[in-house]
Amino acid sequence: MAPVALSETKHEARRQADTPESRTVRFGPEAPLKLDCGLDLQPFQIAYKTYGALNADKSNAILVCHALTGDQHVANENPVTKKPGWWQTMVGPGLPIDTDKYFVICSNVLGGCMGTTGPSSLNSAKNRPWGLDFPVVTIKDMVRAQAMLVDHLGISQLFAVIGGSMGGMQVLEWAASFPEKVFAAVPIACAAKHSAQNIAFNEVGRQAVMADPDWRKGSYLETGTFPGSGLAVARMQAHITYLSEAALQRKFGRELQDRESRTFTFDADFQVESYLRYQGSSFVERFDPNSYLYITRAMDYYDLAADHGGVLANAFTGTKTRFCVMSFTSDWLFPTSDARDIVHALNAAAANVSFVEIESDKGHDAFLLDEPEFFATMRGFLGGCARARGLKDA
Amino acid sequence: MAPVALSETKHEARRQADTPESRTVRFGPEAPLKLDCGLDLQPFQIAYKTYGALNADKSNAILVCHALTGDQHVANENPVTKKPGWWQTMVGPGLPIDTDKYFVICSNVLGGCMGTTGPSSLNSAKNRPWGLDFPVVTIKDMVRAQAMLVDHLGISQLFAVIGGSMGGMQVLEWAASFPEKVFAAVPIACAAKHSAQNIAFNEVGRQAVMADPDWRKGSYLETGTFPGSGLAVARMQAHITYLSEAALQRKFGRELQDRESRTFTFDADFQVESYLRYQGSSFVERFDPNSYLYITRAMDYYDLAADHGGVLANAFTGTKTRFCVMSFTSDWLFPTSDARDIVHALNAAAANVSFVEIESDKGHDAFLLDEPEFFATMRGFLGGCARARGLKDA
Repeated sequence: MAPVALSETKHEARRQADTPESRTVRFGPEAPLKLDCGLDLQPFQIAYKTYGALNADKSNAILVCHALTGDQHVANENPVTKKPGWWQTMVGPGLPIDTDKYFVICSNVLGGCMGTTGPSSLNSAKNRPWGLDFPVVTIKDMVRAQAMLVDHLGISQLFAVIGGSMGGMQVLEWAASFPEKVFAAVPIACAAKHSAQNIAFNEVGRQAVMADPDWRKGSYLETGTFPGSGLAVARMQAHITYLSEAALQRKFGRELQDRESRTFTFDADFQVESYLRYQGSSFVERFDPNSYLYITRAMDYYDLAADHGGVLANAFTGTKTRFCVMSFTSDWLFPTSDARDIVHALNAAAANVSFVEIESDKGHDAFLLDEPEFFATMRGFLGGCARARGLKDA
Repeated sequence: MAPVALSETKHEARRQADTPESRTVRFGPEAPLKLDCGLDLQPFQIAYKTYGALNADKSNAILVCHALTGDQHVANENPVTKKPGWWQTMVGPGLPIDTDKYFVICSNVLGGCMGTTGPSSLNSAKNRPWGLDFPVVTIKDMVRAQAMLVDHLGISQLFAVIGGSMGGMQVLEWAASFPEKVFAAVPIACAAKHSAQNIAFNEVGRQAVMADPDWRKGSYLETGTFPGSGLAVARMQAHITYLSEAALQRKFGRELQDRESRTFTFDADFQVESYLRYQGSSFVERFDPNSYLYITRAMDYYDLAADHGGVLANAFTGTKTRFCVMSFTSDWLFPTSDARDIVHALNAAAANVSFVEIESDKGHDAFLLDEPEFFATMRGFLGGCARARGLKDA
């Protein structure tokens, strides 16, 4: 594959994403973010989007947490890709996460590249981009930052925290770290700790980025290079894990791409090759390679039980939060066994928990797709919680 | 990861592997190898090892076919790695493939890098290494070359052809292309066609190699560079697919490497990261990057049914070969469903076929490991075939 040049236009759009399309809140030296690594991060900023209206008693706010490569543009055209928001089928007027009823907040995660402070942000102490000087952050750090945003918005309790994949890890961390601030929690297609296999896949992705000479030990923004080839390989590999063998077979099988027979070259003969190459090359147009390193690292570090004496149930002792845990039958990145571990811990903590395994052959990606049983479960669970919470119009 | 420098010593050992440690047969212009791409390859050579003694009527020969990164050194110390042969637990005196009874042949595949002609060999017409001028070869081409070797050895019928993974594809191709030359066939942990998911993983590996600037469009042997970083990433990814989630969990889980706690860096904190890095860096000491491209391509191109009117059973019409098909329960690269497809086709062709699914949590790699039920099945099947064939001492 030829080195992937980052489109200057899109690069600019990504870097400016904290101004026109989403709001930003900045925290100065008076409000440092205390990180798990022991450092205080300051100043820093959080870029976020909101949808719908906060009601008078501020009881209808839903925080949506995005996954590894997601962003705050959950339900509007993405300013970088010009594509619909990543959960535009789920979040909006009349949709399961109904913006006619709920005030929806989504913020770019700490370490991200869409306006929230991350490795591509300016390190004001050194007047250059953070690069690898940016501290290694954790899922808990991401959640601490979100909690500062929620406080800033004057919301003392979120009606719900919802997210899939790494977003689901944040949901679990919210419920564990700030139980009184979470009325309902919906962790989807996730785990309370990252498995050895998932760490392994993430490590391959990081090595692909770091093996690219244009990465320059993380200082590519200063050198004017861009490790797009390495990032594309990382994305191609990760994309395979987001699908299922059945989905790949159904979508592509062994079908050839625009040709009658094999070319006996290393061109993309098969449709699945062409598809993956496209996934790789389009990803590098919108994502920062160092952010990819930091966010995958945060996922790998995640182990909620380890933070609670090795017993996952201890993370939820005395919780009053209502949980709805969901998994998908063909998800092999976060299989149903991971969801069951969460449910068993919640049961042991005598929590109020629903668990639904959704039948789907679409793999991990199913949480981003319009799966009827999934949407119906989300709508039903939120409706029941809204009635319990006494939300007007719910 | 720092660029991986190829050890000069081992590089030399690999390139000279066709002289001291294994025999070589050369075919000149009078015996071109007719390739599926339409070209004739000549001159070319095959490097091979034999073990045991050929009996008087030449009826006790077993051809062992190696997998993607294997070689002819099946049961002796590998001259490059100085490690035991890749199937030294299976092949040897008194072992299931018993060299006291059988004459075992194993040859490096066409396109390989251990002495058989491949992209790192000299293209005598241009007086430089073949590089990407080497024709894209297929599993059938590999088998045609092996058949020329077997003819050269004066063997008119092989007692058995045995192999796992890509070696199993060669076994199937032998049984389909040369049914009269194969008394018994043992395809293990393989498929009659490569799945979309497997093509996808191979494509990521190839892109990792080709994204390495030191690959130089395949001409690195001329430029004196070596795309070791890309090849290491490819190997790391592939290695994950050779194991199972359960095996990774049991071997590594989330255990840290030589440290009490997370370092909050991108060092290999987890044992599984360190293990994968080692797999990547040791692989580049023994394997040629272009060979990796060619051999993965051959696997991706493999579709035995497509060569027989789209009906797999047609590949085996009228066969008298005795088959023993084996798969492993936790192998997700070549799951048991792939083996069942082979067995169903053999049944439809009224072939003599045994099928055993071995219980193992070790993933695809189980075919290289000492799994008692696997070894017992191999011993029993070969013993029965030897009696049927009337082999002395069998």
